[in-house]
Amino acid sequence: MSRLKAAVVGATGLAGQQFLTALADHPLFDVTVLAASARTAGKKYKDAIKAASGAVQWFCTEPLAEQFAEMTVQLADDVPPTSVDVVFTALESDAAAVIEPRFAEYVPVLSTASAFRYEDDVPVLIPGVNAHQLPLLRAQQARRGWKGFVAPNPNCTTVGLAMTLAPLHERFGVQSVLMTSMQGVSGAGRSPGVIALDIIDNVIPHIKGEEEKVEAETRKILGTLTDAGIEPAPFRVSATCTRVPVLESHTESVYVGLNQAVTLDEVKQAWAEWGRDFVALGHYTSPKKLITYHEDPFRPQPRIDRLAEDGMTTSVGRLREDSVLPNGIKYVLVSHNTKMGAAKGVVLMGEELARQGYIG
Amino acid sequence: MSRLKAAVVGATGLAGQQFLTALADHPLFDVTVLAASARTAGKKYKDAIKAASGAVQWFCTEPLAEQFAEMTVQLADDVPPTSVDVVFTALESDAAAVIEPRFAEYVPVLSTASAFRYEDDVPVLIPGVNAHQLPLLRAQQARRGWKGFVAPNPNCTTVGLAMTLAPLHERFGVQSVLMTSMQGVSGAGRSPGVIALDIIDNVIPHIKGEEEKVEAETRKILGTLTDAGIEPAPFRVSATCTRVPVLESHTESVYVGLNQAVTLDEVKQAWAEWGRDFVALGHYTSPKKLITYHEDPFRPQPRIDRLAEDGMTTSVGRLREDSVLPNGIKYVLVSHNTKMGAAKGVVLMGEELARQGYIG
Amino acid sequence: MSRLKAAVVGATGLAGQQFLTALADHPLFDVTVLAASARTAGKKYKDAIKAASGAVQWFCTEPLAEQFAEMTVQLADDVPPTSVDVVFTALESDAAAVIEPRFAEYVPVLSTASAFRYEDDVPVLIPGVNAHQLPLLRAQQARRGWKGFVAPNPNCTTVGLAMTLAPLHERFGVQSVLMTSMQGVSGAGRSPGVIALDIIDNVIPHIKGEEEKVEAETRKILGTLTDAGIEPAPFRVSATCTRVPVLESHTESVYVGLNQAVTLDEVKQAWAEWGRDFVALGHYTSPKKLITYHEDPFRPQPRIDRLAEDGMTTSVGRLREDSVLPNGIKYVLVSHNTKMGAAKGVVLMGEELARQGYIG
Amino acid sequence: MSRLKAAVVGATGLAGQQFLTALADHPLFDVTVLAASARTAGKKYKDAIKAASGAVQWFCTEPLAEQFAEMTVQLADDVPPTSVDVVFTALESDAAAVIEPRFAEYVPVLSTASAFRYEDDVPVLIPGVNAHQLPLLRAQQARRGWKGFVAPNPNCTTVGLAMTLAPLHERFGVQSVLMTSMQGVSGAGRSPGVIALDIIDNVIPHIKGEEEKVEAETRKILGTLTDAGIEPAPFRVSATCTRVPVLESHTESVYVGLNQAVTLDEVKQAWAEWGRDFVALGHYTSPKKLITYHEDPFRPQPRIDRLAEDGMTTSVGRLREDSVLPNGIKYVLVSHNTKMGAAKGVVLMGEELARQGYIG
Repeated sequence: MSRLKAAVVGATGLAGQQFLTALADHPLFDVTVLAASARTAGKKYKDAIKAASGAVQWFCTEPLAEQFAEMTVQLADDVPPTSVDVVFTALESDAAAVIEPRFAEYVPVLSTASAFRYEDDVPVLIPGVNAHQLPLLRAQQARRGWKGFVAPNPNCTTVGLAMTLAPLHERFGVQSVLMTSMQGVSGAGRSPGVIALDIIDNVIPHIKGEEEKVEAETRKILGTLTDAGIEPAPFRVSATCTRVPVLESHTESVYVGLNQAVTLDEVKQAWAEWGRDFVALGHYTSPKKLITYHEDPFRPQPRIDRLAEDGMTTSVGRLREDSVLPNGIKYVLVSHNTKMGAAKGVVLMGEELARQGYIG
Repeated sequence: MSRLKAAVVGATGLAGQQFLTALADHPLFDVTVLAASARTAGKKYKDAIKAASGAVQWFCTEPLAEQFAEMTVQLADDVPPTSVDVVFTALESDAAAVIEPRFAEYVPVLSTASAFRYEDDVPVLIPGVNAHQLPLLRAQQARRGWKGFVAPNPNCTTVGLAMTLAPLHERFGVQSVLMTSMQGVSGAGRSPGVIALDIIDNVIPHIKGEEEKVEAETRKILGTLTDAGIEPAPFRVSATCTRVPVLESHTESVYVGLNQAVTLDEVKQAWAEWGRDFVALGHYTSPKKLITYHEDPFRPQPRIDRLAEDGMTTSVGRLREDSVLPNGIKYVLVSHNTKMGAAKGVVLMGEELARQGYIG
Repeated sequence: MSRLKAAVVGATGLAGQQFLTALADHPLFDVTVLAASARTAGKKYKDAIKAASGAVQWFCTEPLAEQFAEMTVQLADDVPPTSVDVVFTALESDAAAVIEPRFAEYVPVLSTASAFRYEDDVPVLIPGVNAHQLPLLRAQQARRGWKGFVAPNPNCTTVGLAMTLAPLHERFGVQSVLMTSMQGVSGAGRSPGVIALDIIDNVIPHIKGEEEKVEAETRKILGTLTDAGIEPAPFRVSATCTRVPVLESHTESVYVGLNQAVTLDEVKQAWAEWGRDFVALGHYTSPKKLITYHEDPFRPQPRIDRLAEDGMTTSVGRLREDSVLPNGIKYVLVSHNTKMGAAKGVVLMGEELARQGYIG
Repeated sequence: MSRLKAAVVGATGLAGQQFLTALADHPLFDVTVLAASARTAGKKYKDAIKAASGAVQWFCTEPLAEQFAEMTVQLADDVPPTSVDVVFTALESDAAAVIEPRFAEYVPVLSTASAFRYEDDVPVLIPGVNAHQLPLLRAQQARRGWKGFVAPNPNCTTVGLAMTLAPLHERFGVQSVLMTSMQGVSGAGRSPGVIALDIIDNVIPHIKGEEEKVEAETRKILGTLTDAGIEPAPFRVSATCTRVPVLESHTESVYVGLNQAVTLDEVKQAWAEWGRDFVALGHYTSPKKLITYHEDPFRPQPRIDRLAEDGMTTSVGRLREDSVLPNGIKYVLVSHNTKMGAAKGVVLMGEELARQGYIG
């Protein structure tokens, strides 16, 4: 089988670089187009990411794949949509609102931007979690008259939360969720991101817009697909999002009320069994387990656990009974915000969309 | 009025040093005895805190007061209880269980240790919060046949929580509390405390025994004094305690269900008015406000707000409605764990106990 | 004596705020003008430092003095130079090159900018170090036909180095200097400054232009004033400047070759005696000692020592013999980059300039 | 060829764990004995590293190899020396002084301890640097009547320094060295290591004994082997060792005076060519380059470069001319203190010793 031609739009930024890292030597997607803004269009990629000082602004731990270094960056507006089979976008929300529809008219667009997340005909996708909502993409195509579609991932803070709630909701029914996040600084990007003067020896108790996103997206992702669109899951979510002096990955303290009494072992079993069919598909970017539970009460820790399964598993621990919520439990999770929580999670979603015939 | 003679027992450790800092040039308490273990007894204080390397192990930001530097450290076991009017203890729990009763038989003992916190005839005291429980000290004296008593403060993580709940409980009735803490490393002390290898770029999601202390102490502090002792407050508390890369002070994300509907303004008013009578007493160590509310959504921050009123006020912000708990609200607080949360808070309690005639 | 009218130009930025902190309730300087760019001109100062989010962007630990909060910020270009007796500027170098001469034509300008540091008729001033170069200001006035002058301070990294070398050079003769700095992040400001993603758990081994500044400024500051201007000190300086995860203050590891053999005690004595006459003047902003030596081998430490004498003393320790350089010694210093190393140091210089009749 | 039987003594500590990580699935060394102190002897390794709390105290990023988990830890004193072909020791200096000779009487002992580093008949070995000193091991055997020998590695701070000086000394002649280190906290181990309260937002300007080790070891490693032992290299070394808030790897700012004039390109070439023959041997643990030079002026950085070639290459950058030392140059290096600088470097040395017939 020949590979699918893929464009990465917004290729020079932090999220774009993470797409390239996830797509290097990819067996299914062949990146034939790198696109960005006018500032870098026309340059070789390796030059496009050079600062004025000459320093190479490549921010992934993994080296830049040679296959991309010599490719010429195109102006996003100039890329013919039909020149590729799929588009991965890593854009700010404003730019995404303009650029993504231009491509989606012809080809699938898999996006890390929030521009379309809250539209009625757009599912917010997490691999292994809400494949039941994929048919909404067909409705989106029909409604908009597009051959392609826009399929965004959620906010990075939503990913670990929805992942760990999904098996609980399916098996026991979630009644309510309270969450406090302790988020790494990479989630804010680099322009300017979080400055060191603000976060060393400190906690910042607010991240603008984050709580609203988490509350809305979680209920949408775990919602029910109906003819009228997605009916949000009928539980309430209340979030407090904070920033801590951690480089990468988000830690979340979660309290959950359930619709029925459960034992802690039943919860662990639900997590252990979650996604077995999905990971058995053996997608190139897939972890072996979607959720990894730690019995050690000092785990999960962001620095130690974030790179488990190259950032594609959600690490969970400290499961305890909660005395406040009905049938309450509480736990702590660590989710890698720039791996499963961003570009690499989108690539995994793309692998599944291709398998199901939505791409290619 | 002549000053009261005071002993500081456990004077060489971190908490002991904080007592000395709070008691330097104190108008009411005259520290006439510094006591510690056999390792340093007999040395001048300034030598007792020297490491083998010659480095001075003085850990407070404020310099060591000259009045203490030349005092000779006594063996705690050798100090005659009746040689002072009051004893401030900064001991590990095991040592406190033995040493504190020896003094309490004759004089009041104000303690940072947990040894007696959970006994039926012992109140856990926060200045400005639960003076209504002070009569239990008289019951303690009667029951144990002591002329003095043991009056411990709570765990440092409890202090900010109970302080902010007290006005809510008094005015509206607290129904339930869920709390996630992000605690500074100084709370673990220095022997060995939290090692840098474990906490830089990391969150540790567990602090042994902390959650149980917070849950029990909060309900006791806000409980009702009856003839049979303290009836814990009838709400439930559920805590998750974590450690973050912050030097000092604890940040807490709090969700509260109330017994009646309130507006956010009513909550702020309750906090603003809390403790007005207490601070009006003008105790030497008292803040001007027990609770300081910030409208800036990026406050409170531990590094910026911990030293407000020299660590004696609880800084609060981000008050929002919560959609999950009944009449729910949520907020973030910062409380200084080694000022109001430890020795200096105990000294303020001592000032109030003296005013009410429990000391001296 | 009536106070001198002062303008702070660039008043809303980080360095400008530090000027206001140093000038609050100042006995000699009465700040009558706050000036900034068109973005904030016309607003009350307290509004000028508000972000779009409503958050107050005040970055000093000390609170904003009420006297400044209600003052209206003026456009720098609109301020009549003769409306004040002295101008304190906290500008980027490009802006300083244009704005400072406009004022200097009429009144003294004390500056934290580098725009004029390397001109032949401009001394680079550190209080207590190179008052012997002040007559160059008169030459500057004569040459340029100005009633005022521009008097800049050095780069913050130069300040501690030149301060500790000055007594050695005066007493023993400095032959050579090798320095490695470990600089705090506040030196880079906030626009965007050092981002957390780059510095947590890291060292950045380069700060653009810093080494060249340190090497040139140190020799100029310790140079000899001649009719032809300043003859740089005849020793060589070689610097390596790095950034470390420290909020404030710069730590420097210094190796010095001397022109004559000395004992370590003689070096300590030279430091202890340095600036006695200067500090005896009792300037409002002056430390009691310009240099504070620590015998504890684990000192100085930036976090512990930076605020000694409110950041106005240079803390030194670890003096040892060096086996490589001729008559070599080595030591470590900590200097507060945004106190003595920036605005507050300039204010102290202003106090001395006023005493000597250069201002007012 | 059958593999050599190896013992790891001190297997449960941090350095011991790093030995196990380096020796997992090793093609040449078959770890048949894990030894430790009486506290853990008799337990399975996986239980020996469990804390009282049940938490697994495994500190390497790489998981514990299954081959070791089930092995029973032996008491070091009970292991018959002749039961293995080689011993890797990770012991405190005091223990090494007693335990290492007992083994060395019969078999080679490769050690991370300092106990024997300064003895006349003991070379201090860095792979690829001083193989010319290996014959001293034969002299050691003859003098002590041992069938084996003790071959220690240097202090971790010495490794990167000596590695980068070696090609300079061979090709141009080193005349003098001044070095300032900024060391990661893992170098201090975990008992208790560096506590977070001391290092967050701070620099500690002293590491006990470190400077003396670096100065002596560097000259010994680059010295000349004569019949009378090693003649230290005839240059002077002067070091200042500091601790910074970095988890792993040491950054060093180095100034070098040379015996002849060189261009910067000649220095880079000397580094590029250094060790080509050694790395061409293809040892299992060998990097592809011993020294990696970065042209980017913002490199090397400890967090970004420490894991290059799995911590086995020394990363260098910022090569500049120095104006102070004769034919002076200056540069910055990053060396991984617990990889090439500790157990894994010793394993690589073992591979080379086996190739040359010193082991097996």
